[in-house]
Formats: sequence, C-alpha cells, structure tokens
Amino acid sequence: MPASEPELIERYLLRAGAERADVILGIGDDAALLRAPADQELIVTTDALIEGAHFLPGAAAHSLGHRALAVNLSDLAAMGAEPAWALASLVLPQADENWLREFAAGFGALARTEGVALVGGNLSRGPLSITVQLTGFAPPGMALRRSGGRPGDWLFVSGTLGDARAGRLLASGEPPVPAGQPAQLQALQQRFEYPTPRIALGRALRGVASACMDLSDGLLADLPRLAGASGCAAQLRIVDLPLSAPLRALCGAQAWQQALQGGEDYELLFSVPETHAAAIAALAVQLKVPLSACGRLQPGSGIELLGEAGVMQFSASSFDHFAALP
Amino acid sequence: MPASEPELIERYLLRAGAERADVILGIGDDAALLRAPADQELIVTTDALIEGAHFLPGAAAHSLGHRALAVNLSDLAAMGAEPAWALASLVLPQADENWLREFAAGFGALARTEGVALVGGNLSRGPLSITVQLTGFAPPGMALRRSGGRPGDWLFVSGTLGDARAGRLLASGEPPVPAGQPAQLQALQQRFEYPTPRIALGRALRGVASACMDLSDGLLADLPRLAGASGCAAQLRIVDLPLSAPLRALCGAQAWQQALQGGEDYELLFSVPETHAAAIAALAVQLKVPLSACGRLQPGSGIELLGEAGVMQFSASSFDHFAALP
Repeated sequence: MPASEPELIERYLLRAGAERADVILGIGDDAALLRAPADQELIVTTDALIEGAHFLPGAAAHSLGHRALAVNLSDLAAMGAEPAWALASLVLPQADENWLREFAAGFGALARTEGVALVGGNLSRGPLSITVQLTGFAPPGMALRRSGGRPGDWLFVSGTLGDARAGRLLASGEPPVPAGQPAQLQALQQRFEYPTPRIALGRALRGVASACMDLSDGLLADLPRLAGASGCAAQLRIVDLPLSAPLRALCGAQAWQQALQGGEDYELLFSVPETHAAAIAALAVQLKVPLSACGRLQPGSGIELLGEAGVMQFSASSFDHFAALP
Repeated sequence: MPASEPELIERYLLRAGAERADVILGIGDDAALLRAPADQELIVTTDALIEGAHFLPGAAAHSLGHRALAVNLSDLAAMGAEPAWALASLVLPQADENWLREFAAGFGALARTEGVALVGGNLSRGPLSITVQLTGFAPPGMALRRSGGRPGDWLFVSGTLGDARAGRLLASGEPPVPAGQPAQLQALQQRFEYPTPRIALGRALRGVASACMDLSDGLLADLPRLAGASGCAAQLRIVDLPLSAPLRALCGAQAWQQALQGGEDYELLFSVPETHAAAIAALAVQLKVPLSACGRLQPGSGIELLGEAGVMQFSASSFDHFAALP
C-alpha cells in the first residue's frame, strides 16, 4: 500500500530542519505551536517555486529544496531579520519517495545552517510546485524596508549580478553551451540552483542601510521598486555593476546586460546615507561578501542608466515573474 | 500592457482582509512586519487547494477564496486558536482579473468576519492552485491537541457529517442528480463550497476538551489519528452520527456511510472527560452549533464501529488526500 500523506510527511519532513527550543509542538497535529520572543517583531513571507515558471521539468529535487527555502530566506535577509520557522506545502504528481528524500536533504541542509525549524507541511497530488512560508524576528523598529532611501544615498549591491540568469539559460540548454570552460559554466549553474541568501548581511545592515530589498526579478525591475518606495529617482553606473569572472568569460562585453536583467540572483540591493558609506567596505571584509557601490538615489522619479555611451533613460517595469514567463 | 505581479497583488489582495492594529507593515515590501502579543503562544498552519485534487476545473473563484481560508481557519479552530494573519500564494494559468476579484471577495468576506488580516501574497503562472498560511494565538498551555484524550472520554462531533462529500459528488455531476428537492441539493453543495470553520467552538473547548482535531479527511480517517495520538482505542456508535435532513433525503438508509467517509466537512472531532460532558449541551445552545456524542475512547488501539447489526472492527487508514485522489 502506498504511504499516506501523514506518513510521508513524518518520514521526510519531520526531522529535516533545525531543532529550536521555541518550537513547543512541531509537525504532526493540526497546527504547530510556537513561542515568540517577547522583545522582537515578527517578519513573515511566503514564496513559491512552480514547475515551468521557476524551474524546468526534471530539475534536481535537492536543488529545489535548497531554492524553495533560499528564496524565502532572501526576503527575510532583505528585512534584516533572523529566520526561525518554516512551513512547506508540496504538490507532487506522485508520491515519489526518492524525490522527497532529495528535497528534504536540500531543504534541510540550508535550514540547519540558518537555524530554521520546519514546523509544518502538507502534501497534495498535482502539478509539481513548492510553497514555503517563513517567519523570522527583528528588534522593534529595526527591520529594513524599501521605503527609507533619501536623495544622495549610495546604492550598493552584494555579490555579483547576472550569474543566475546565465546559469538558468545554461540549464535550459539555451543558448547552446559554448565549448570549454566547464568549471565556469558549472559555477554559473550553481548560482542558479543554489542561491545564497544574505542573512548575515541583512542583519548587519540594520541601522546602516536606509532601504533594502532582495534582487529576485533583476536590477532593472527591482531598482525602480526601491527607488519608487523611497520617493526617489536613481542613477545607476553600468561600469560599476559587479560581474563574476565566469559571466565575463561567457558573455564578454554583453555581461552587463545579464547583470541588469538577471533575475533570481537573490543578492541584496540597498541604499546607504553618505555618512555610513565608508562603513560598507569594512562590512564587506568582515562578512567576506563583495559589496559594490553602483549608483545613487536622486530627487525625482525614474531610473537613469549611466553607460560608457552616456545616459539612457529607463521607465519602470520590465521582467516580471507573472507577465514575462511562459 | 498586462498588469505586473505587484500591481495585481496591490489591486486585489491589499485590502481584502481585516485591518488589524498588530500589522506594522503589510503587503508591499519583501516581507510583512507584525507585532506578536506578549502573553500568547503562536499557532501556525498551512494548507493548499489544488485543481483536480481539491476542486474541479471551473470551480467558482468566490468559493475557492472562501475555502482556501476556511480550511486553514479550521486547523486553528482545532487547536482552540484565535486567528490573526494570513499569507496567500496563488498560481494562476493567466492573469485573470475577474477571477482575482471574485477570489478576493470570497477570501475577504470570511477574513473580515474572522478578523484575519492578509499580510502577504504572491502570484505565479502555472496550473491553478492556492496555498494559504495562517497564524493565530492561544494563551500559554491552553492550545488543544490531538493527544490529550484518555480512556472513558466521550467523543463529540460538531454540526452534521457527510454533507460536503455529497455536495462534492453533486458538484461533479456524479451520481446523477436525483429529480426534485433542489433546495436540499443546493444546501449540500453549499456545505462543500462554503465550509464553516468552527473558530468560536474551538476557543470554547479550551480547558474542556481533552483532545481535538478537525475533520478534513472524514471520520474513518481522522478518528484513528486522534485516538492513536491519545494512545487509545475508540468506539463509534453509527446510530449517533449527526446526519442532516438534506443528506438523509438524498442518501436514505446509506447516509451514515457518507458521514463516516465524508471528507472536507471541517467540523471538529473532540474528546471530553466524563466530568465535562454535561457542559457540552449548554455550549451547543450557546454557540448554536449541534454537538453530538457519538462514541467513547477506550483502552487499547484501533477503532470499533457499533452499528445496528453489531460490531465492525476497523483498522486505520482509508481516505487520504494524497493516496486516494486522481
């Protein structure tokens, strides 16, 4: 007889995450019972990975487990939150226990690294998708928002941009993979399949950044959101976009276009008042994360791209998970 | 140009739920910011509605909005929790604004009735599904669980059983709808499409019920879970199962089979020590909800059905969303 939903959940999800003392009752009842810290605000988010929209059929379950948690961790990182508890809702075409084992391994490795307990889950039958909900904490009034930027603030991004987009294209076999450089190609694909949520950076930016968000849809789509929420315009200097060696090797002089349009990097975009800008270099060293100044907020609205050929005007909205995907 | 994901979320989900003073920052940033009550435990759950598994293609969006929230509210009711905050993750085949308007109306009406704020949401493109996550509160140590039942405790169910299953079959056009009695058929279908989560009952059962759960998979599947978690056997008296007039009219002498197997009633099943059993009748009057004693917990394990023809033994596991559905 095939295993029932509660049996599968108990077998694969019950012990996947971290153990936490604030979980009074985890997976197994109608709901989980948790003890919130008395002196913190709660920060909650949910995000989904849908086959065909966010990953291709046949994508490795281990990577999907990692990514499904990572995209939610990235939202908490953007708020400067400390992650704590996750719930996972899985839709699978069949009760594939190998898939569940691999998913739980990918999810669990990241969950334990970040101290996240998996406190609830459910399984349904249908087209493959994974929805994760995540709760974290921040001290009262200290959470980062998109709306705090002011004209004159410097714009920074973490890591390098465009790698995940290139990795995604490589994973889809389009464009045809160039010969040679297998290690570099693999590095890009790794960036798509195993994004690194910038939790420690988000926490360190509390009280330093004036505004912050994560780059899930790409700089061209996301920067107008941060600038708009802050009531500012933004100028972006193309030459200062951080590009990885593998991306430069693959895309040559067009690498900056990947960096502008590339979604799913899950790096942080943040603004910093002039007075704090000098602290960012020290933070980059301390956290071992590249932090690159690539523009400034300005009075007004809209986005200005400063390239080698001069200024390009740009008006909001481009890549959008809902409108742009097949 | 089609509306982007953030535009659609802002247009249809931003004001769908209740307003709550403990929501510091709702929909629109990377995550929501909430103030947890200092003197309560948090109770969290997530549940999904998948086209093909939980509803038929073409199901009304208004009903889906109601049900997607109701099935989660029912989990909180089973724990005796006060609901507070919801997140909704929608997967739609296309950006159908009429669908979103109707969904938000169905979700919003129930959310406002129960005081639930919708604090986050996301939209993706893909096969239709709705995943909701819900957080509520209960005083420390007062949440109901499945595991507190003891031999001798009375078993109660709320409302009437089997109606949703019959309504679901009617909605699917199978079996052929009998002639006449349109009001009764409509009543059953209503029970499937607009289940009533028993929030007030769950709260009232704190300190009264020894164990509680909601009936999502049907009594035959769910009773063994409550009895098993409580380390007990259970005896169920078929003749005492509460059956609605419409179900009796439709199914005649077989109505009790629907009541046993019927999933998705979202009534509460709970056990009550002998000393509190007398209080239940008063509670039924006060809350205007039928509460029917239909069995007892016993020493041992397994489920015993006491019918007119005598005792039927029954060993766990039957209906299961994952194993049994197409």
